[in-house]
Amino acid sequence: MHKENNNKGEIQQPATTKMAKKTDGKEPDTKGITCSKEDNFSDWYSELVQKAELADLRYNIKGFVCYMPWAVLSIKKMYEKYERVLERNGHLPLIMPSLIPESNFLLESSHVAGFAPEVFWVTETGAGEKFQERLALRPTSETALYRMYSYWIRSYNDLPFKRYQSCQVWRAEATKATRPFLRAREFHWIEAHNVYATMDEAKAQVLEDMDMAYEVLQDEFAIPIIFFQRPQWDKFPGAIHTYAADALMDSGKVIQLPSTHLLGQNFSKPFNVKFMDKDGIEKYGYITCYGPAISRIYGAMIAILGDDKGLILPFDLAPKQVVIVPIIFKESDDAVLKKCQEIEKILTKKYRTHLDLRTVSAGEKYNHWEIKGIPIRLELGPRDLAKDEIIIVTRKDGKKKSVKIEELSHELSHIASTYTNDLKDAQLAKFKDFVVDCENIAEVKLAVDNKKMVRAGFCSTELDGEKCAAIVEKETGAFVRGTKFGEKHSKHKCVVCNKPAKDTVYIAKSY
Amino acid sequence: MHKENNNKGEIQQPATTKMAKKTDGKEPDTKGITCSKEDNFSDWYSELVQKAELADLRYNIKGFVCYMPWAVLSIKKMYEKYERVLERNGHLPLIMPSLIPESNFLLESSHVAGFAPEVFWVTETGAGEKFQERLALRPTSETALYRMYSYWIRSYNDLPFKRYQSCQVWRAEATKATRPFLRAREFHWIEAHNVYATMDEAKAQVLEDMDMAYEVLQDEFAIPIIFFQRPQWDKFPGAIHTYAADALMDSGKVIQLPSTHLLGQNFSKPFNVKFMDKDGIEKYGYITCYGPAISRIYGAMIAILGDDKGLILPFDLAPKQVVIVPIIFKESDDAVLKKCQEIEKILTKKYRTHLDLRTVSAGEKYNHWEIKGIPIRLELGPRDLAKDEIIIVTRKDGKKKSVKIEELSHELSHIASTYTNDLKDAQLAKFKDFVVDCENIAEVKLAVDNKKMVRAGFCSTELDGEKCAAIVEKETGAFVRGTKFGEKHSKHKCVVCNKPAKDTVYIAKSY
Repeated sequence: MHKENNNKGEIQQPATTKMAKKTDGKEPDTKGITCSKEDNFSDWYSELVQKAELADLRYNIKGFVCYMPWAVLSIKKMYEKYERVLERNGHLPLIMPSLIPESNFLLESSHVAGFAPEVFWVTETGAGEKFQERLALRPTSETALYRMYSYWIRSYNDLPFKRYQSCQVWRAEATKATRPFLRAREFHWIEAHNVYATMDEAKAQVLEDMDMAYEVLQDEFAIPIIFFQRPQWDKFPGAIHTYAADALMDSGKVIQLPSTHLLGQNFSKPFNVKFMDKDGIEKYGYITCYGPAISRIYGAMIAILGDDKGLILPFDLAPKQVVIVPIIFKESDDAVLKKCQEIEKILTKKYRTHLDLRTVSAGEKYNHWEIKGIPIRLELGPRDLAKDEIIIVTRKDGKKKSVKIEELSHELSHIASTYTNDLKDAQLAKFKDFVVDCENIAEVKLAVDNKKMVRAGFCSTELDGEKCAAIVEKETGAFVRGTKFGEKHSKHKCVVCNKPAKDTVYIAKSY
Repeated sequence: MHKENNNKGEIQQPATTKMAKKTDGKEPDTKGITCSKEDNFSDWYSELVQKAELADLRYNIKGFVCYMPWAVLSIKKMYEKYERVLERNGHLPLIMPSLIPESNFLLESSHVAGFAPEVFWVTETGAGEKFQERLALRPTSETALYRMYSYWIRSYNDLPFKRYQSCQVWRAEATKATRPFLRAREFHWIEAHNVYATMDEAKAQVLEDMDMAYEVLQDEFAIPIIFFQRPQWDKFPGAIHTYAADALMDSGKVIQLPSTHLLGQNFSKPFNVKFMDKDGIEKYGYITCYGPAISRIYGAMIAILGDDKGLILPFDLAPKQVVIVPIIFKESDDAVLKKCQEIEKILTKKYRTHLDLRTVSAGEKYNHWEIKGIPIRLELGPRDLAKDEIIIVTRKDGKKKSVKIEELSHELSHIASTYTNDLKDAQLAKFKDFVVDCENIAEVKLAVDNKKMVRAGFCSTELDGEKCAAIVEKETGAFVRGTKFGEKHSKHKCVVCNKPAKDTVYIAKSY
């Protein structure tokens, strides 16, 4: 990860991309991606973000970036898909204020300890108005919501109470470098907060949250994930347990994506979230919360799916799905152009289609739209037209195919309907042999250096295991990600201290 | 308008609704709206918001409210509709940081003067990090965006440059009472910011902005509006001209809805938004900005369309479009229920349909869904079923009609396709005789007291007319809204000072 290299409130672009000219889709960038994803992921990612025009790092507050249209068009579709699944599962949308009074924070002690250092505080208005207490830009909304839940929930009839909001949060992370979408001081997420009458129902919600992540992230966004129950030293501040998805990458490193937290009654007690039960007794609710960070998921997705030519996007998320490139020579201009326009008119009814009429070479156009990750490119030249054929190139695998123009529509339907699933299958296949079993720390180091995830015995994922986890980190640079959700414990000895293993854990490097 | 009646950082609910119990759709509210919209708009609005469960005012920061699901579901659809029209007209979405460095603000002097008193300032982080300068929670994004535009715009090829973002803004308005959706310290809007090569093109964008407002607000949301060019003393800080839509209400008062601002080169010069023109000369761009405040439009819409039974909503914006109420007596339960479930299954494919199976009286259900504004209610009892009929009640006019069940689908199609347009026509008809011409201030007072809008001659809408406008306000409680866009000046004398009139202005009370 590149480091912030000044402290003047500005983030510098990586040197390789700093001087490149802005294009905004109008001046073609003919260079493609010059860094190799395999050799230098960090620079590759920076160059991808810059050349595909996804984010601009030149905003003049440290840790804050501008999201550009090509990214926002996909991010909006990702929100729609996640929200649809949440609503189908009974969640209703809310919009909460983005400021939280300091006194709300102080009610749950682990929570305030975990988040207080990262809070941006609003202390004054321009007119000199003084607040009785500081106002936090929400780093997460538990302490704003649950105070209101205490008004909104009265009886068992109100349960389950399932709500979500799509919003941004702010966290002044001090130690980590900004990386657009993956890590920044303002990011965009969904947070769902649910209240149940019993612990068992709350646990079932955690399972539903995981199912939603597999459905949306893995099936729709083609991101391979595994859910872990995080060790106690790595859980959400205030939770009983945290279950987090790790997305898998070629580099062997993982990125934490949605996490769901079993809060139990840890928040319902201080925030007084009570209900009158059927038996006439007032009881505290059991709460779960779930935080798919859409901007981070977008970053992970482009990092995982992209290649050295640029972006690769799931079909439904691509801002444009089909680009038509006419291959024009002087004598044949009119017929080719006319046919391209006809095709555009037909395809536009079904796909987000773009006809590229710029006066640059076809090669430049290919590069440009490969960087942008348009799933399907159509090429039509006079020789194709003479045979009533058109060339289809799919971005995900670079496959080229000539088909009769009359069969185009049928061919595209097939590609459209299989494109994302093919992406997903290819990703899952990559990680078939990703996990290796290790018996000692030397094996762990070798495995993570070989871009693998390790499965090993571990003395404990309670707080008393943290010392061994620190040794893992020091010796290998990797982290104990937790126990795999739903997997049976099978190991005898701790991979670090050789004491009897209470848990079978997974270890990997992470971003 | 009710006033904030304490200064302890809490907003009190109006006394009439303060003690009412939370229902969240589960415990029926049998009371309906008790205030009359005509007699007491302010209390009626508060009660509507509370009983239809649209917002909760009990959030513990002054001027900040929680938006509840029934409102958010409509607001999300309103965003979708507006964004679709913006994108159709060539605007691309951005997501900008919500914090703006103080130094950005200082670059345009009228702008900073206008907004500085209302800014919420972030001054510190929880970890004690000191910023070199204060960070503003954006009250509007000109000063964040145009600094970036200076990077993004290079040549005439980049123009027109049309961008929008959907986001919230914060304004610490000191003097005005909070009213959910209509006025609060955090609200949700869209802002579009466009750059052109010439003033004429920028002026054409202002026209497009007005057309979009008529298309979306008037045609889709059924809100009657008129656009005025605001007097110079009432324009956007930093603009050459401000054109604002006033929405018309039964009370005779208007509410300002989207406004579009011709900024010319007022911002492009300090923010260095330049482009290389075709002639090889570097020039400053001409900027326009446009700010449809969706949460405020929602508030205006429910205020304008609602009646003493509760909400009335445009068909597409209703969270649920059809509610089915079975009329059940013991002996006939099964057949009626079964038929209702059959009908629900069919209608769900086309409409957002709800079958109300609660064990409360049919009358309570009618009241409840009338308050919530569901456009169509279906009632089915054993006598209807015996005749193969079903009763359709439309919310907007209370009309009741019995139709053969086999014709239901056809009937609903007709109602769905005309519902919103009928709402719009009914609103426009109300305001056919809304404007009256006045010759002196006594006539103006009489007219506005009679809930009319006044057309009158006015000495000037430049700054030298502000004195006469102050007299209008003092004598009548009404405001000079500006000149009607596209209307020819026709008056001879100023309605206040009797000097020759340079403009024909409109005068109305406003919220």
